[in-house]
Amino acid sequence: MDDKYLRTIHAPADLKKLNDEQLQVLAAEIREELIETVSKTGGHLASNLGVVELTIALHKVFRSPEDKIVWDVGHQAYVHKLLTGRYERFDTLRTENGISGFTRPTESEHDMFFSGHSSTSVSAALGIAEGNKIKGNKNYAIAVVGDGAFTGGMIYEALNNAGRSDTRLIVILNNNEMSISKNVGAMAKYLAVIRSRPAYFRLKERTESFLNKIPLIGKKCAKAIFNLKTIVKNLIYSSTMFEQFGFRYMGPIDGHNIGQLCDALEGAKEVKGPVLLHIHTTKGKGYDFAEKSPSLYHGISEFDINTGEPIYSGDNFSKEFGTFLADMAGKDRRICAVTAAMSLGTGLAAFQAKYPDRFFDVGIAEEHAVTFCSGLAKAGMVPVFAVYSSFLQRAYDQIVHDCALQGQKVLLAIDRAGFVGEDGETHQGILDVPFLNTIPQVTVYSPSTYSELRGCFVQAFYHDAGLVAVRYPRGAEKPLPDDFHSTGESFDVYGDADAAIAVVAYGREFAFACDAKAQLAEEGIVLKIVKINRIKPIDQQVYAQLLTSERVFFFEEAERGGSTGELLGAELCERGYTGTFIHTAVDNEFVCHASVASQLHKYRLDADGMVMTIKEHLPNGNETA
Amino acid sequence: MDDKYLRTIHAPADLKKLNDEQLQVLAAEIREELIETVSKTGGHLASNLGVVELTIALHKVFRSPEDKIVWDVGHQAYVHKLLTGRYERFDTLRTENGISGFTRPTESEHDMFFSGHSSTSVSAALGIAEGNKIKGNKNYAIAVVGDGAFTGGMIYEALNNAGRSDTRLIVILNNNEMSISKNVGAMAKYLAVIRSRPAYFRLKERTESFLNKIPLIGKKCAKAIFNLKTIVKNLIYSSTMFEQFGFRYMGPIDGHNIGQLCDALEGAKEVKGPVLLHIHTTKGKGYDFAEKSPSLYHGISEFDINTGEPIYSGDNFSKEFGTFLADMAGKDRRICAVTAAMSLGTGLAAFQAKYPDRFFDVGIAEEHAVTFCSGLAKAGMVPVFAVYSSFLQRAYDQIVHDCALQGQKVLLAIDRAGFVGEDGETHQGILDVPFLNTIPQVTVYSPSTYSELRGCFVQAFYHDAGLVAVRYPRGAEKPLPDDFHSTGESFDVYGDADAAIAVVAYGREFAFACDAKAQLAEEGIVLKIVKINRIKPIDQQVYAQLLTSERVFFFEEAERGGSTGELLGAELCERGYTGTFIHTAVDNEFVCHASVASQLHKYRLDADGMVMTIKEHLPNGNETA
Repeated sequence: MDDKYLRTIHAPADLKKLNDEQLQVLAAEIREELIETVSKTGGHLASNLGVVELTIALHKVFRSPEDKIVWDVGHQAYVHKLLTGRYERFDTLRTENGISGFTRPTESEHDMFFSGHSSTSVSAALGIAEGNKIKGNKNYAIAVVGDGAFTGGMIYEALNNAGRSDTRLIVILNNNEMSISKNVGAMAKYLAVIRSRPAYFRLKERTESFLNKIPLIGKKCAKAIFNLKTIVKNLIYSSTMFEQFGFRYMGPIDGHNIGQLCDALEGAKEVKGPVLLHIHTTKGKGYDFAEKSPSLYHGISEFDINTGEPIYSGDNFSKEFGTFLADMAGKDRRICAVTAAMSLGTGLAAFQAKYPDRFFDVGIAEEHAVTFCSGLAKAGMVPVFAVYSSFLQRAYDQIVHDCALQGQKVLLAIDRAGFVGEDGETHQGILDVPFLNTIPQVTVYSPSTYSELRGCFVQAFYHDAGLVAVRYPRGAEKPLPDDFHSTGESFDVYGDADAAIAVVAYGREFAFACDAKAQLAEEGIVLKIVKINRIKPIDQQVYAQLLTSERVFFFEEAERGGSTGELLGAELCERGYTGTFIHTAVDNEFVCHASVASQLHKYRLDADGMVMTIKEHLPNGNETA
Repeated sequence: MDDKYLRTIHAPADLKKLNDEQLQVLAAEIREELIETVSKTGGHLASNLGVVELTIALHKVFRSPEDKIVWDVGHQAYVHKLLTGRYERFDTLRTENGISGFTRPTESEHDMFFSGHSSTSVSAALGIAEGNKIKGNKNYAIAVVGDGAFTGGMIYEALNNAGRSDTRLIVILNNNEMSISKNVGAMAKYLAVIRSRPAYFRLKERTESFLNKIPLIGKKCAKAIFNLKTIVKNLIYSSTMFEQFGFRYMGPIDGHNIGQLCDALEGAKEVKGPVLLHIHTTKGKGYDFAEKSPSLYHGISEFDINTGEPIYSGDNFSKEFGTFLADMAGKDRRICAVTAAMSLGTGLAAFQAKYPDRFFDVGIAEEHAVTFCSGLAKAGMVPVFAVYSSFLQRAYDQIVHDCALQGQKVLLAIDRAGFVGEDGETHQGILDVPFLNTIPQVTVYSPSTYSELRGCFVQAFYHDAGLVAVRYPRGAEKPLPDDFHSTGESFDVYGDADAAIAVVAYGREFAFACDAKAQLAEEGIVLKIVKINRIKPIDQQVYAQLLTSERVFFFEEAERGGSTGELLGAELCERGYTGTFIHTAVDNEFVCHASVASQLHKYRLDADGMVMTIKEHLPNGNETA
């Protein structure tokens, strides 16, 4: 292990000392490191295995951080991390206080942006390139983008602006034929066509000179050939979509050949104006299991290196939702399922297999997904958009403008609501409640169990009007006390109805509140829990439950601003509540990567935190605050 | 006037009875009606003058509402309204309880969606088309989209999905060479190229058969020609971007020739699968002043028909902002201005003229705009994105993920914050405060005067860190009492510091609160006004001012959910406030079109409303609630 090249690379400058052969060895070392580490930590394996050679070539040809490399999404930056001084700590990947699974400027000067959402890199890199131009700075801005990101609209906004810019912008399209789910849409097909004919593109380059040599025979034919030449010239001028957007197109290039990559990148540096370099890579390259099942190895938990099998599995909200929705779709022909490139993650695979006519994977296109649902509803369907909380925020305007305002029935199945653990700041599901709270005429449910999840959807399908969201956390349901019985109403009360202390909670937090209640009962502290199932709008009767309590504690996995606890607190104030109100939530912070348990603990949103907070605010004895 | 064809058309069926000559006359009648009405009501003139023939042709060829026409943005649907039973009421355009300036399903079965934001129509129409397909319904879904909307990314998400669909979707690209500001970017240039060569497209159709007739002379030349033929065939197969996205491309067509339009639409109906029909129109067609200055006549106030001059003008926040920013940019070379196709509306014309290097009109691309700003900041610039409140919500995720999380200095200049009047539901600026409140580490200012506006920006430029928003209303500043003196601090207190009644207000509402204070003083009711200038985060000292008040009234032009008043109310509750707290805001509603004054009055957010609310909650005499 001591003779590894990888160990000698503390910064990109060290990489530049290696010759081509040594770089090949380095690539193999990196792959080994990736597979070994991710098998223990979980993470994004397939995409990183795919960009080993590209990342080496980038750091060989460019000077980071003066030249700024912007990784789209940022989950494919593990290799970049290994080459920019983070090898020694790489075993801490995705663990608390360890290396993040995404780029993170606080971690290294080589990481440009905190990232985690798709299709943003060209906009960011263009900003850098334009800023450089204004300052007369000659450095490059490089965006590295997977083909999946080309299903997201924002990148076209950026291309439209970048194409006319006279900047040192290089966009690297890493075409690996896979976004998170199997790539969809016309763009994927189009790239496949381009990729399949490198010979054609070489030919294209030779054609222009050839055109001048076509013999002219007879007047009519001469004119026809002249016209033909004009057509061909026009077409060649804009023969790829990227050229139509004003980029100089280069490629396609074998993305696993370091020499070719370096040559192409050097070539791109020489071009005046923006360049799009199209490279072709294999997702999962070098690890058989990942090459064969890149979707499975896109984001994976710990796995066994030899068998490729994930170590953990089991039931979870996503699976339960997917099974249930497929069942419902069998009974109700109006039900459609929509996903933005997350059919596996959201549990829709069964629906997809059973009802392909009513299943739509729209690509990484959350905005389109929401508005498309509105159109489906207009045609009499009942669409369900299954989406992670963190990605739904990309469609805020479409929820407002194209759904809520229309009043048509559209369902949002919001997965990964609340803390998500190791993915960190960019993936937390703690904004959906706040931002849905800002939107008029939206209904939001937050079930605590699979059974409640099903009940919420039945309610949404057959009783509610307008936009209805059902949100549920990552992972499995938590066991609830035997003596708790869900009524299926908009809220439940658990515990002594006359208790002076009321705890308000929803979703996963209810289980912790039950634990806290049991712990406190041992000390003779009695409380009732008001479990709100429909968190928007809150049932008026909830206030009646709380106004008579001396102390109200609200625990919530959400950003404080706009959260349900804040709205409930304001309402209590307006209703003249004079007791103690304590709201525990995330306060004006972005939440770092760590385990979900640790995140809950840090923000005092687990049972222990609840007990501590409640005891701190008791009148006698236990006050510490 | 009585013999107008327009008067005889109560539904599209009536239109179908007219012959070509009569339709020409109808078109002229419609133009006259448009110019006359909009000169009195204000509204979107130029775009509607441009689609007179197109709208006639659409209703001639299709059967609305079974065939569903989706108007992108919806501001060009006046002609559609005139032809679908709304002629008699057309003089009520954009007035309270009158005809809306946008499509509105509650107004007519021919209006598919409430609309007002750009680039959404293809997604919505595709949803309808897919729904129809599932149900076996043979009707068409038609999206009518201006070229400006092709600067918005969402439309590419839709094209990417639509292209592979086997649906009866027809997208009409209305190419009028103008979005709201002069069209920008590579796409506009690309469309101009296509448009300039109809002969080329006719030629293209003939080329394929010709290819088979090229004589082959000599072996080498034969092979070369064979290769050339292959290239040309490939290129022709996907010669426009729309064909690359999987659409059948038709056009370009003269959009002012009803006969040609009808033929093309009939042709489009016969195609299996999605069609893009490219038509070319002149914005402002038929009214000289509008043809010459389509930007000015895009959205215009009342104007004089004979001179084309707007009747009102004067100072406003947008102008003051624009002048100030250009001044600042002269002193500070880092300052950049970014707009999403709103350089006139946001007052940036002066900046654009003076500092073109640092001015960026990115098209109708709010998402890109925000992330691009983050890139500019990374390169050491200080970018200011000037944007209407209602459109900023399109970039919620980019504000969270690409700005706030990065911690870099990016400024948002949020124009049209609060009620906007006649544009109605889709344009109200009452969500920006709620949604910005959900985002960690954002600073928000809401100045009441031009002078305060300048102060806020200076503070933001030279003292604050991270993302800073300054929000200001449509129109002019309101006069404030002579004895009020702004301190320039994060809040001001006006009135008797010991008054039992405190009113909290910000921005425009402060002026109304001052009026209310004066009115109430005449009745011996004394109040102090806590004017919050920095509304996020709220200064801790504000609470000290309020906790000692018996009654706290908060008046706010915002949706209640997540608004500053709610967060302040919750904080009062947490701090043990036992007095009366009354928060007046828009409660779970979308706000219809009417004058701003009427909207303020309706929601009790003008001085009279404040007086009424305060008096209702006084302990003696005046209680009515």
